[in-house]
Amino acid sequence: MKTKLMLALLATTLAGTAVAQVKPEDAIKWRQSGYGFMAWNMARIKMNVEGGSYNKEEVIKAANAIQAIANSGMGALYLPGTDKGKGWEETRAKSNIWTEKEKLGKAAMAFNKEANELAKVAANGNADAVGDQLGKLGGTCKGCHDDFKAKK
Amino acid sequence: MKTKLMLALLATTLAGTAVAQVKPEDAIKWRQSGYGFMAWNMARIKMNVEGGSYNKEEVIKAANAIQAIANSGMGALYLPGTDKGKGWEETRAKSNIWTEKEKLGKAAMAFNKEANELAKVAANGNADAVGDQLGKLGGTCKGCHDDFKAKK
Repeated sequence: MKTKLMLALLATTLAGTAVAQVKPEDAIKWRQSGYGFMAWNMARIKMNVEGGSYNKEEVIKAANAIQAIANSGMGALYLPGTDKGKGWEETRAKSNIWTEKEKLGKAAMAFNKEANELAKVAANGNADAVGDQLGKLGGTCKGCHDDFKAKK
Repeated sequence: MKTKLMLALLATTLAGTAVAQVKPEDAIKWRQSGYGFMAWNMARIKMNVEGGSYNKEEVIKAANAIQAIANSGMGALYLPGTDKGKGWEETRAKSNIWTEKEKLGKAAMAFNKEANELAKVAANGNADAVGDQLGKLGGTCKGCHDDFKAKK
């Protein structure tokens, strides 16, 4: 019963997010792009916090980009069968992404929460607070990588 | 005099956007990531507009991601010397990016304008209007690619 419900929900999600025509190699490339672009934005927030000068406008732009990507619904890019394959490079997604749904869902929600919070904190422009919040966001990245991403 | 002013402005911009420590290969990878992630979001808006069903929430998320990336200040990733080099793949940035500043600036502004407009139109949820605006945004992508991106 529970499984049937889950499958029905999954089917609805897939239909509702227009993934039917997406090629696996594109899905992998697009999710790698999302993480790659967030990496830049995290790196430059870090540079602003740790460097000599703090550019509030740049940090806001960077935090807004991270927030919009975090909230974009990238889960739709984890199509069945994309635990193998090459986008920009061979995917390092571990197969438990498709089996440990509850654990993954919690990790994704924690990440979204901290990304939304970072955008709020960035708007206030306090470098120390942004540094603390960036650390919290980074913790959710690492947690998910430890569990669901293969090492290089 | 004009050149000195330009150089001074450029130096300020570089210092102000924390690019000093950025490796060229990272800059190239990060900008390719930004375009790659926008490509997904444009593709799924297109699928929503042209497919049988329109998911307003998905289109809003996609348009917001495009908007935040367009406004993120990716120009900072076009470091001097990154007309050659490999990020995810060899860059196809043409060298006139670093010489035709005014033309490039106009192309970038046109792109930002249409990306901001797309997010507004998406919030209203009219599929036809979103389709029209997506076409306008796509036109600014193509214009820039024609002028500043080498063919494969």
